[in-house]
This record gives sequence, structure tokens and C-alpha cells, in this order.
Amino acid sequence: MALTLAALAAHVGGRVRGDGARRIEAVAPLASAGPSHLSFLAHPRYRPLLASTGAGAVLLASEGDAGAERDLLVHPEPYRALARILALLHPEERPGAGVHPTAWVAATARVHPAATVGPGAVVEDGSEVGEGTVIGANAVVGRGVRIGRGGTVGAGAVLVAASWLGDRVRIGEGAVVGSAGFGFVPGGTEPESIPQVGRVVVEDGVEIGANATVDRATLGETRIGRGTKVDNLVQLGHNVAVGRGALIAAQAGVAGSTRIGDGVMIGGQAGVVGHVEVGDLARIGAGSGVASSVPPGATVSGGPAFDHRAWRRAMLLLPRLPDLFSRLRRMESRLRALEGAAPGPALEEEDP
Amino acid sequence: MALTLAALAAHVGGRVRGDGARRIEAVAPLASAGPSHLSFLAHPRYRPLLASTGAGAVLLASEGDAGAERDLLVHPEPYRALARILALLHPEERPGAGVHPTAWVAATARVHPAATVGPGAVVEDGSEVGEGTVIGANAVVGRGVRIGRGGTVGAGAVLVAASWLGDRVRIGEGAVVGSAGFGFVPGGTEPESIPQVGRVVVEDGVEIGANATVDRATLGETRIGRGTKVDNLVQLGHNVAVGRGALIAAQAGVAGSTRIGDGVMIGGQAGVVGHVEVGDLARIGAGSGVASSVPPGATVSGGPAFDHRAWRRAMLLLPRLPDLFSRLRRMESRLRALEGAAPGPALEEEDP
Amino acid sequence: MALTLAALAAHVGGRVRGDGARRIEAVAPLASAGPSHLSFLAHPRYRPLLASTGAGAVLLASEGDAGAERDLLVHPEPYRALARILALLHPEERPGAGVHPTAWVAATARVHPAATVGPGAVVEDGSEVGEGTVIGANAVVGRGVRIGRGGTVGAGAVLVAASWLGDRVRIGEGAVVGSAGFGFVPGGTEPESIPQVGRVVVEDGVEIGANATVDRATLGETRIGRGTKVDNLVQLGHNVAVGRGALIAAQAGVAGSTRIGDGVMIGGQAGVVGHVEVGDLARIGAGSGVASSVPPGATVSGGPAFDHRAWRRAMLLLPRLPDLFSRLRRMESRLRALEGAAPGPALEEEDP
Repeated sequence: MALTLAALAAHVGGRVRGDGARRIEAVAPLASAGPSHLSFLAHPRYRPLLASTGAGAVLLASEGDAGAERDLLVHPEPYRALARILALLHPEERPGAGVHPTAWVAATARVHPAATVGPGAVVEDGSEVGEGTVIGANAVVGRGVRIGRGGTVGAGAVLVAASWLGDRVRIGEGAVVGSAGFGFVPGGTEPESIPQVGRVVVEDGVEIGANATVDRATLGETRIGRGTKVDNLVQLGHNVAVGRGALIAAQAGVAGSTRIGDGVMIGGQAGVVGHVEVGDLARIGAGSGVASSVPPGATVSGGPAFDHRAWRRAMLLLPRLPDLFSRLRRMESRLRALEGAAPGPALEEEDP
Repeated sequence: MALTLAALAAHVGGRVRGDGARRIEAVAPLASAGPSHLSFLAHPRYRPLLASTGAGAVLLASEGDAGAERDLLVHPEPYRALARILALLHPEERPGAGVHPTAWVAATARVHPAATVGPGAVVEDGSEVGEGTVIGANAVVGRGVRIGRGGTVGAGAVLVAASWLGDRVRIGEGAVVGSAGFGFVPGGTEPESIPQVGRVVVEDGVEIGANATVDRATLGETRIGRGTKVDNLVQLGHNVAVGRGALIAAQAGVAGSTRIGDGVMIGGQAGVVGHVEVGDLARIGAGSGVASSVPPGATVSGGPAFDHRAWRRAMLLLPRLPDLFSRLRRMESRLRALEGAAPGPALEEEDP
Repeated sequence: MALTLAALAAHVGGRVRGDGARRIEAVAPLASAGPSHLSFLAHPRYRPLLASTGAGAVLLASEGDAGAERDLLVHPEPYRALARILALLHPEERPGAGVHPTAWVAATARVHPAATVGPGAVVEDGSEVGEGTVIGANAVVGRGVRIGRGGTVGAGAVLVAASWLGDRVRIGEGAVVGSAGFGFVPGGTEPESIPQVGRVVVEDGVEIGANATVDRATLGETRIGRGTKVDNLVQLGHNVAVGRGALIAAQAGVAGSTRIGDGVMIGGQAGVVGHVEVGDLARIGAGSGVASSVPPGATVSGGPAFDHRAWRRAMLLLPRLPDLFSRLRRMESRLRALEGAAPGPALEEEDP
């Protein structure tokens, strides 16, 4: 598939500078792109490559970012344009509709005729799979699970009984939605499990990464809001509520009953303790450990987490702690010398 | 299913205050409970809801905790009572016994007639599945694995060859028990794997969370003691020994050959280095990194972890490091001024 | 199977001290070994067991490490010798070649006649499985995936479309290779996914642990270099490039587009931010958070990570921060007293 640069610009509502008739076959990174490729600036640190790239054309937010000779596709939101061009040039292959002969679908399950159930997949009693949804190979849709339209359940993923998924939901390979939460009776010699009988609700447009886990609620529901994206190996505990449009990066974890607001960004490997609230649009730095509620819009880092800028200042000084201690010791000795010389204050004992 | 409040109280050995004839259909959170619901105090911060909840009755440790008008079920261990009431009102659905026609059971495997092997599940050569145990859809029971009675293996879970599971063991969806440990010959240009030929022993009543991993021993055994609960995405390395009744929260990890005592609690995302001992009843804070042995009963936090209270005090001061450095600088300059004025001590060079 | 100590020594190029005719049936840990066992020193802290072990013989780097009476197998690289002896005495059972009747192999897939496809496994369109490679039970080999010779794909693992694996690659149970990376258009009310259309290349001799995840590239490729070993539950983001012979321990994570050099060692639960470089032979401490590039050969720890020795010194002082603050307060008050007594410097306000 090849399209002209002008056609791509029209598709995304952008503008061409240079040769609109140039034929583009694919998108490629600056370092490896050739004359039939459109490239882009994935990170500011690759800016020097703009001069040397062999790309036929480059997608940029502004003409000023590139040399004079280069063909450009100029768009105010280059990442959004990139997403749409990628979808156009590299369309997702979706398998044909129907239930694979090696799949097993319970008699009481309802699978839409335009849905796909892949090889070895299992759809258990009373569940429902919507139009255009694809259940991957060896995936398991448990009893009473409901999946809306246009979704994807990756190979080997498991939706446990009573999960409820909206439309356009994507579940990564090996992910588990609806696992039993970690709830035990405190005290006693052997922990006694508290039955977990609630469900998980996953709203429209949510994506959950590979091998991530989302626990069902003890009672009521665990909920992930519309359009939220959850990366690989993330853990969301029972009764967690995540708002709309949040981004939760890989290996992060949110403990039970915590509320994450709309548009919150949680960095990789960060953890949030149970029973707190993270306000709308807050940002949690990678690797942080959030031990108390975070106000809307705040940016926090560290473990326990506090204001990100204050944390950065403190972290810059951390390697200088040995210096700090030795300066303190020297000052104490100088102070003692002065006190010996001056009249008045008594000599105080310091650590030897 | 509905029972009177008096019947529930009798079932758990508790006491009714108010109307014992009230009919209870389900357990519900304080915020959403109605007149046919029993509710409870999940966390102290929800105490204000006790006054306003619409719950027909509330389960509490003491009458004094609620207003005068409310019907109560009073029990000295409300969480224990809750667990038993949930199990009574929301009984776990267990599928009927038998091997599903789409499952594959090796000729040399022994599956008890009262066990269940779900759709697409695989039970390999020489393995054994005990009475009442349920193997979930697409789960894999490897060669020579032994599973006792009354257990559950979640959908998509994998028990690798030579794992040995006791009675009433629950393995979460997608969990892997018996994976090869991470052992390599140090030095050389390409790491050479050390064969991992030991096994995993999982004692009675253990629960392992979704997508968790437990490595088989290099030699001998990795062991998880009776009644221990392991949460989602936890990693237990080769030759680890965990005692009885321990609680290991999500995404925590224990490196090879470390011993975790009885009743130890490990917080989420915490890590314990290899070849150390964590004593009985020790507690390890969430996100901590334990780099050396922990005495019995100790509570530690931080990375590297030390006494939890000392860690909290240090963490409260961390944001004040910049202030500390500037106070130190001011004092040094004042000290120099005094030394210039006073007789005796020479002026010392400090960082400018 | 039993071999003489002399035969084992010959097999690994070592030397016997004592009775070369002693028959060895298995390798066992010092604490539990008996007269027909060869044992070894797994960690320096077990050295005291050398005197008391019941092992028939012990594998050591030097005669001087053991008492006079013990039969020894002396080898300059005892771990390497151990690996080879384990492989000899405990040979890996590999199932017979062929496609299991419950597996599903697409008509357009090419499976070598000497490869094995286990029960319930799925090999999708256009994929290729090399000679001697074993696909475990319920594993999924996606469309267009290529696997070389002598490899192993663990039960329940998923190789997503367009993954490319070399020879002798081992994929752990439940691992996912080729999952979609975490890429979204910044800004806007609902994050828009950037299609991930690249692939994953896994070079010869690589091992990937159970339930680990490796994302396919947005464009181009994510690459894991020859002989690199990746432990359980590790996350490698899109466009990551890992060099040869690296060791990445459990639950570590590497964010998108970062380059990890040859022979790098990454400790458990460590994280590396995106778009940086970790130089050859660098070491990253367990639990660290690497926020910027690391020079070749450096050892770093902490979050954000810096020089490991400097970090250790700082960490030793961290618990003494409260002491530091109180010493500072005392000094300030003594300084004020001196300033009151001495002529000149004005009294400055400090925090009360």
C-alpha cells in the first residue's frame, strides 16, 4: 500500500511543504527511514537526526524544526497524525468472524455472528460476546462475562466470572480480569480468606496490558473508567476505581479500595496504597510509593511520595549526606574550640 | 437466598441487638447497602457512614460503635464473621465433576472421579488430581504433578512438572508454579544456565494469586508453608522456603534460597534479597527492599530496609534536606565570622 | 543413573582428590546430601556445612576449601562444572516429536517433523517452528512467528504475530512476546493509541522467564541479544534493545526505546526509564530506578540511581537524619549563645 504525501496530509488534516506527489509506503524511525518512508520525531533527543535522515518526508509540528530541503507533513499534533497514518498504512489484521472448530462455546453463551472466537478459546456458560469482538487463541471467557462490541481479548487472557466489559475494550495477552482479591481475616494462626463475590466493570475504550491483573471486588465492583490505558503486568486490587482517560504504566500497582481520578498518570513500577484517593490529573512518578491521598493536579515522587520538585531537590542532595555529616562534625569541633575560648556557654556532649 | 439476622448470628456465634427476624439477602458496602443488606466497617475511615447508611443491619465488634436505632450483629471478630456470612450468602459455584470433552488427560494421569477438569485443560503424564479439585479452563497440569483434594487451579494456570500441591490449595488464573529458576554460571562471555531439577511443594490451604510465579528448586525443593497466601504477580525464586500463615502482597518478590518465617507479612512491591532469613512474624513494608536478614517480630521499611519507625522519622525529614544544607551553610559562615573575631582557631576551608 | 566421581571429573575437565571409583547418583545440597551424592558450595555463607555434610563428594574450586578426609572433585570453575554435571545426571525430558492430536496447526504454518507441538497448543497462519523445538501445552504461536531450532516455548506462553526467535531460545510458561507497546497521543481528553506495528527479535540462546512480557516495536524492532537471560515477570518495553549476555532479574522493567549493553546485569525489581543507554557491563542494583544513561562498567543503585558505593554510604547515614537535625538545632543555639557573647555578627532567625 502506498499513498501520496498529499493524501496522507488530507487524511489527518495536515499540510504539505514540498512534494505532495511523493509516494509513501510506510512509517519508519529517523535512523532507518528511506525515500519511500515518512518519519517523525519520537523524542526531542533524536532532533539531530532530522538533518541526516534518509526519510522521504518527515512529520513535524512546525516547519522551523527541519532543514529547508526536506519534504514535510506539518500537523499541530504530530503524534495524533502519526497514530492515524499508522492505522491507515499498517491496518490491523482482524481474523474472519466465526467460532473456530477447536474453540468451545457453552450452549448458554451468546456469541454475535460477527464476532470471532479463536482456536482453543473457551466461552463459558451465560457469557456474551459482542459484534466484531475477537477472542484470541486459548483465551478464556468465564461464566456470565459480558463483552461489548469491537473489542479484543488477547491470546491466553482470562476473564473470570462476572466481569463486565464495554465496547472497544482491548485485553492484552495473558491478562487476568476478575481474579479474587487479597482479603483475609486479620489475626489467628492461619489466615482465613474473605470470599470475593463482587465484579469488575471495564468501561468503553479501555486497554489492559499483557499479563496484567485486575481483581474483582469483595462486594460491589472494581471499575476502570472510559478510555483508561493500563500497561503490562499492572496490578489493580479489589474495589479499586480508576477514572476516565488515566494512564497506568507497566508494573505499577494500586491496592484495594483506592480511587484514581480522571486523567491521572501513574509511572512504571509505582505503587499506591489502599483506601486513598488520587485526584484528577495527578501524576505519580515512576517507582514511587504513594502512602496517602494525592490532591488533584499534583505531581508526586518518591517513597513515600511527596511533591515532585521537592523530591528532586532532596534526591540531588542525598549523595552528599556523607559530606554533610563530616561538615557537621568539623563545625562541632570548631564550636567547642570557640566555646572553650569564649566566656559563658558550657561544653555540650556530642556523639564521640 | 435470605436468612434472618438471628440465623446469621447463630451461624457465626454472634449476638443480635435489635430485630433478629430481619431478613438479610446479601452483604453490601455501607455506602450502597439497603434494608435487606448486612453491612460492615471495612476500614476505620468509613466510620462516619455508620450513621447514614441505609443498611438493614450492621456487623460490628461492639455496640458502642453504632447509633442506638440500628439493628446490629455483634461479633468480637467481625472480619471472621463477615468471611463466614459471605460464604453462606454467596456460596462459590463449583462446576460438576468430570473431565470436559475438550480437555486432554494423559492415559497415565489419575484424576479422581469427583474432580473436575475444565474445557481445554491439559493433565499430562503421571500426574494426579485429588477429590473435589477443579482444574480451570485451559489450565495445564504438567508431568508428574500431584494436586490434593478440594483445590482449585485457575483458568490458564500452569503447574510445571514435579510440582506437589497439598489439599485445599488455590492457584490463581495464569499463575505458574514450578518454572525454572534464574541460575547461571558467573563469568564468561555468554551466561550458561544451571539446570533446575528440583521441585515445588505447596502445603495445605495455600493460595497463590493470578499471574504469580514460583520457581522450582535447583535441587531439593522450594516450599510454601500451610495456609500462606500469596497475591497476584508475586515472584518466589528457586529454593525459597516460606513458613506457615504468611501473607505476601501483590508484586512482591523473594529471591533465591531466602527463608521467610511463619506469619510474616510482606507488603506490596517489596523485595527480599537471596540467601537471607526473615524471622517469624516479621513485617516488611510495601515497596521495601530487604538486603539482609530480619529478626523475628521486627517491622522494617525502606530500601535497604531498616526499623520501620526509624525509617518513618528519616522519611519525614527527607524533604527538608535542602533546608538542612542551607542552614549548615549559614552556620559555617557565622562560625567563620566568630572565629575571625575570637582568638585561637584557624579559619578552615569549606565548600564555597 | 550413576557415574563414578572419576567419570564426572573427566566429563567436566576436573580432577579427583580421593576415591575416583565412588559412585555418584545425584547432586544434592550440603545440608541434605548423602554418600551417593555430589554436593557443592552454593553460597559462601554455607561454608561451615563443608565440615559436617554427609555428601559422598564435594565439588570445589580448590582443595584447601575442604577438610582432609573428604572426596573432592576440584574444578577451577565449579559453577560451570556443576551446570554440566546436573545436565548429565538429570537430563531434561523432552517429549517425542510430532503434533499432539488436540493441538491446532494452521495449514499455512510449517512445523519441522522433528519439532513437538503439545496438547492444546495453537500454531497460527504462516508461522514456522524449527527442528527439535518444543511448543508446550496450550501455548500459542501467532501469525507469521518464526522460531528456530532446539527451542522451548513453555506451557501457556504466547508469541504474538511477527515475533522472530533464533535457535535454542527458551520462553517461560505464560510469557508474552510481541505484546502491543504502551504508546498514546499525549493531551486530549481520551488517550488515543498509537498502533504498534513493529516486531520482536529474540536472538540465539536467549531465555525469557515465566509470565514476562516483551513488547513489539512501534516501528522497526525490539531486540534481545544472543545469550541474554531474562527472569520471570520482567517487562521490556517497545523498541528496547538489549545486548548480548545480559542478565535481567525478576520483576525488573525497561521502558521504551532504552538500549541495554552487552553483559549488563539488572537486579530484581529495578527499573530503567525510557530513551536512555546503559553501557556494556554496567550493573544496576536490585530495586533501583535508573533515570538517566549509565556509563559502561558503572555500578549504580538507588532511585534515582547513582554510583553504588556513594549510594551505600548515603544509605548508611539515612537512619541518622533525625540525629543530624537535632545536632544542627543544638549547634544553632550554641552559636547564638556565642554570638550574643562575642562582638560583631547579628543574631539570625532560625526555625524555632
